[in-house]
Amino acid sequence: MTTPMSRRDLEFLLYEWLDVEALTSRERFSAHSRETFDAVLELSADIAMKCFAPANKIGDANEPYIGDDGKVVLPDEIVAGLTEYRKAGLISASFDDELGGMQLPTVIRQASAVWFQAANAAMSSYNFLTVGNANLLAEYATPEQRDTWVRPLVEGRFSGTMCLSEPQAGSSLADITTKAEPAGDGTYRITGTKMWISGGDHELTENIVHLVLAKIPGGGPGVKGISLFIVPKYLADGTRNDVALVGLNHKMGNRATTNTLLNFGDGTFGADSTPGAAQDQPARSAPGAVGYLVGDEHRGLSYMFHMMNEARIGVGFLATALGYAGYRASLDYAKVRTQGRPVDHKDPSTKPVPIIEHADVRRMLLAQKSYVEGALAFGLYCSTLVDEAATTTDPAERDRLNLLLEVLTPIAKSWPSQWCLEANSLAIQVHGGYGYTREFDVEQYYRDNRLNPIHEGAHGIHGLDLLGRKVIMQGGAGLAALAETIEATVARARTVDGLDTLADRLHAVVDRLVKVTAHIWSAGDPKLSLANATIYLETAGHIVIAWIWLEQLLAADGRTGDFYDGKRAAAQYFFRYELPKTGPQLDLLTALDRTTLDVEPSWF
Amino acid sequence: MTTPMSRRDLEFLLYEWLDVEALTSRERFSAHSRETFDAVLELSADIAMKCFAPANKIGDANEPYIGDDGKVVLPDEIVAGLTEYRKAGLISASFDDELGGMQLPTVIRQASAVWFQAANAAMSSYNFLTVGNANLLAEYATPEQRDTWVRPLVEGRFSGTMCLSEPQAGSSLADITTKAEPAGDGTYRITGTKMWISGGDHELTENIVHLVLAKIPGGGPGVKGISLFIVPKYLADGTRNDVALVGLNHKMGNRATTNTLLNFGDGTFGADSTPGAAQDQPARSAPGAVGYLVGDEHRGLSYMFHMMNEARIGVGFLATALGYAGYRASLDYAKVRTQGRPVDHKDPSTKPVPIIEHADVRRMLLAQKSYVEGALAFGLYCSTLVDEAATTTDPAERDRLNLLLEVLTPIAKSWPSQWCLEANSLAIQVHGGYGYTREFDVEQYYRDNRLNPIHEGAHGIHGLDLLGRKVIMQGGAGLAALAETIEATVARARTVDGLDTLADRLHAVVDRLVKVTAHIWSAGDPKLSLANATIYLETAGHIVIAWIWLEQLLAADGRTGDFYDGKRAAAQYFFRYELPKTGPQLDLLTALDRTTLDVEPSWF
Repeated sequence: MTTPMSRRDLEFLLYEWLDVEALTSRERFSAHSRETFDAVLELSADIAMKCFAPANKIGDANEPYIGDDGKVVLPDEIVAGLTEYRKAGLISASFDDELGGMQLPTVIRQASAVWFQAANAAMSSYNFLTVGNANLLAEYATPEQRDTWVRPLVEGRFSGTMCLSEPQAGSSLADITTKAEPAGDGTYRITGTKMWISGGDHELTENIVHLVLAKIPGGGPGVKGISLFIVPKYLADGTRNDVALVGLNHKMGNRATTNTLLNFGDGTFGADSTPGAAQDQPARSAPGAVGYLVGDEHRGLSYMFHMMNEARIGVGFLATALGYAGYRASLDYAKVRTQGRPVDHKDPSTKPVPIIEHADVRRMLLAQKSYVEGALAFGLYCSTLVDEAATTTDPAERDRLNLLLEVLTPIAKSWPSQWCLEANSLAIQVHGGYGYTREFDVEQYYRDNRLNPIHEGAHGIHGLDLLGRKVIMQGGAGLAALAETIEATVARARTVDGLDTLADRLHAVVDRLVKVTAHIWSAGDPKLSLANATIYLETAGHIVIAWIWLEQLLAADGRTGDFYDGKRAAAQYFFRYELPKTGPQLDLLTALDRTTLDVEPSWF
Repeated sequence: MTTPMSRRDLEFLLYEWLDVEALTSRERFSAHSRETFDAVLELSADIAMKCFAPANKIGDANEPYIGDDGKVVLPDEIVAGLTEYRKAGLISASFDDELGGMQLPTVIRQASAVWFQAANAAMSSYNFLTVGNANLLAEYATPEQRDTWVRPLVEGRFSGTMCLSEPQAGSSLADITTKAEPAGDGTYRITGTKMWISGGDHELTENIVHLVLAKIPGGGPGVKGISLFIVPKYLADGTRNDVALVGLNHKMGNRATTNTLLNFGDGTFGADSTPGAAQDQPARSAPGAVGYLVGDEHRGLSYMFHMMNEARIGVGFLATALGYAGYRASLDYAKVRTQGRPVDHKDPSTKPVPIIEHADVRRMLLAQKSYVEGALAFGLYCSTLVDEAATTTDPAERDRLNLLLEVLTPIAKSWPSQWCLEANSLAIQVHGGYGYTREFDVEQYYRDNRLNPIHEGAHGIHGLDLLGRKVIMQGGAGLAALAETIEATVARARTVDGLDTLADRLHAVVDRLVKVTAHIWSAGDPKLSLANATIYLETAGHIVIAWIWLEQLLAADGRTGDFYDGKRAAAQYFFRYELPKTGPQLDLLTALDRTTLDVEPSWF
């Protein structure tokens, strides 16, 4: 069976390109070596293929439901697979040794995770959210909170969620209405409704740690009044907290991830219903779910951004993994499915050829390859920035790395979500009618992947983030950091035979992007400047991926063999078929086009 | 309830732009008037909304299955809705009076059909196939065959299919292996397996008339040996013909259309199983399903192209209708859903605004509007070509119209299939998380629409058809006819204030397309010329839709009001955001890029 992820590509990216082995010279990772990295990756591939992949169609065909006892029912294969994952201790991969973690680099954790995402995207999200939740708490929680909540999360006994959205407020967190009232004993009582909570309820773990954004009365307006709370499903003494599952959302794809509507403090599990509550637990007489403040009051959103930024890169990986799985499936199919003949054939009695012989099928395979390998490389690059920023001893270098990561995060989330979804569409197309049936895997990948441009900030939000915040932060230092990093690659590529032309082309578009950015902000009208922020995001995304392809070409330079020839062909495809798309986009941005501003709602 | 199709837009396109009333001056349509056209459209809208729309989610959630008695089970609502449709006599819309038809123009039939396609795409396909089947037979069948098969089809008592594909041969008809042996009595015995047969079995009608491509022994190789047969589910005396349902395909969308694997002549309903067969029926001792030759032997594919060309335009309409339905749904949502504030707001205590106030949401609505209204206009334009060609008394004009239709058919099929699917993706995006759930309609539209780039010739096939056949046919007369037609619009637009710039831009790209086409074919290597045929198809498609938008602007010129302002805004969007995409595509085509030819299968 072909794996939905490529060991060879991961090896190339991690060791031949990014040289992640060098991270072992940093103190934090000094206990590690290529051998320990490889062992984790091998274990991941093994469990992903044995316990996640076989459950992928099962989870899709058997959506979670709420049983008669009010508990979420998931297929046995999903439960069993996640149990194996926890037993292997993989959740602890990147956590500190003192928390029971393996203290592996983030880039290795992500390279491990991508196996599970490719094998079973919906199943992988439980772990993904748990890790993000625990990472946030490891950074901002008190020592006591860490002992109570983070350790069991790292062990995999508990799982975690992020509770931001509400039915009336998806991307607009300023408008959340969930309240947190001080209970007088240092704890809070949370009341409100949270929507779209992935992993919001299930019986997979002993407990679920919800990280909840809520407003403490008297806080500032909008996002300034938001605080962050730990709100567990069960309190530390085992009594049920007042967090009630109201309903499960029925989705197009990604079905094995429960996605929930949760009520906090609606009385379902109130004081009256928990007569056995221990005396030393927070008083349950006050209505509301018991919540524990994380960090300071009114600073909740800044803490949550820690998890959100990580989740955004993680969503990029999720989209990438699905794209990758579809690419590999369609490649397999194209090699064995025979149909048609070369367009210049003369003799109709000749046998049909494998469809990979047809130029248009190769185009669809090259497009997929350029998208998914480009996205995977980019995601791993961003992950190394996290590791390097966390371990560098040079404060200026740390600032530079963090700045670069800030600028790249909206692209790391949105670009794979757009183009690896497109890859999945091409994977269906390569399969023809078979690809449209549920007997094959690719239609599920496409449905699963359609989620990714929506969650963790809808696509357009990242355009506003990139153009409205990131590229202009610190007086434009963010964009400057990106441009300098790309130009360094350009400079290296200019000295290499065969890469100089590509380097020149990349330089030209980066230069235009920098100039267009200044031009956009010279308009003196933020509404106009941001009117085409999504186009800006997509343009910057294609430029960044072209840069990542040039980086891969540098790493492949001088090497021979099919694998490297494949890298060169995919890079060539991206520079010839994809990068030129930025031309008209940059023209549009330069024109400060007002079409979307001037149209009236009544005209539609 | 908002309708998934717009009466106002249809009225504009049919009467203000295409002037379909003028068709009533042609003899064939002389019994008609705007009143009869409107009555049919009103009836269609009414039945579509009452009987088709409410069954859309039902049909999706309750896939057809094979019951214990071997018969296909469809939800009651689907059966009831199709019964109402048949009772209204709408299948007969465009057929000749002498066949029991209403002898309406094709363009009115299509404008009627698009209501049903938008209300319930999967249900609409039964009628669509029946009409196409009967149209082919009305053209090529013997008088006796017309009486036996076409009349009941037109009445709606029978339904029709097209049986081309086989498991090993989808787009490649040269490789079909279904055989037709002469039985000695003028009939044939058909044996073989047909795959992807939509409407291939069900209990909706008294009988099903399969049009089957098969090879008579001794015919030429490849497509030259193909003949066409009527193979009914039941013979004229009511005995079962040996056409057996082997299985139903389980699809991502479009679920209420049964899609079948059929065995012809495998003995399931052979001689032994039909003891009651009447004496005057074809002998059943020979194995095989009874088939009746249509037209001459070995000319089957040319007849089938009659139905295929019609089906291709019909698929374009299906894609368009789904895109249109999604656009209307997301527009409704964007007007009522409040979230966020203008990007330049200062006061976070202000109320959230309807999301249609956000530039990026307007971009997504304008994009959808430009795609779906552009596609609808284009589809109706093609339909008027059918009507005009069928009724003109000038042979040269008929040839010109048919040539133009030939060139436009691959675009009429593929462009809506690509861009109205993209519209559906944007409709989901406008809905945010809600759009990803099955509680809303848009995710189903997206799943349903993903079929359209696959069936009736996969996307890439139409690129080969357009570049490899249509634009070079008759010494390049096809492309010349298209260019002249577009240039006539350009000439008119140049005289209109505000349209002259758009006219110049359109002229420039058409001119480039013509030159690039000549350049491509000057390569002297068909493989190289056709290596980027899909890019050529997509480029030509965008140019054609820009032309259709310019046509609409001419029709709207001088008119005031929201509706016309909306047309202008959508056209502006298309010219500014979409048409420039053809620039890099034309560059790529000019370069005669070899990337997809030079890559080796082993490099992937």
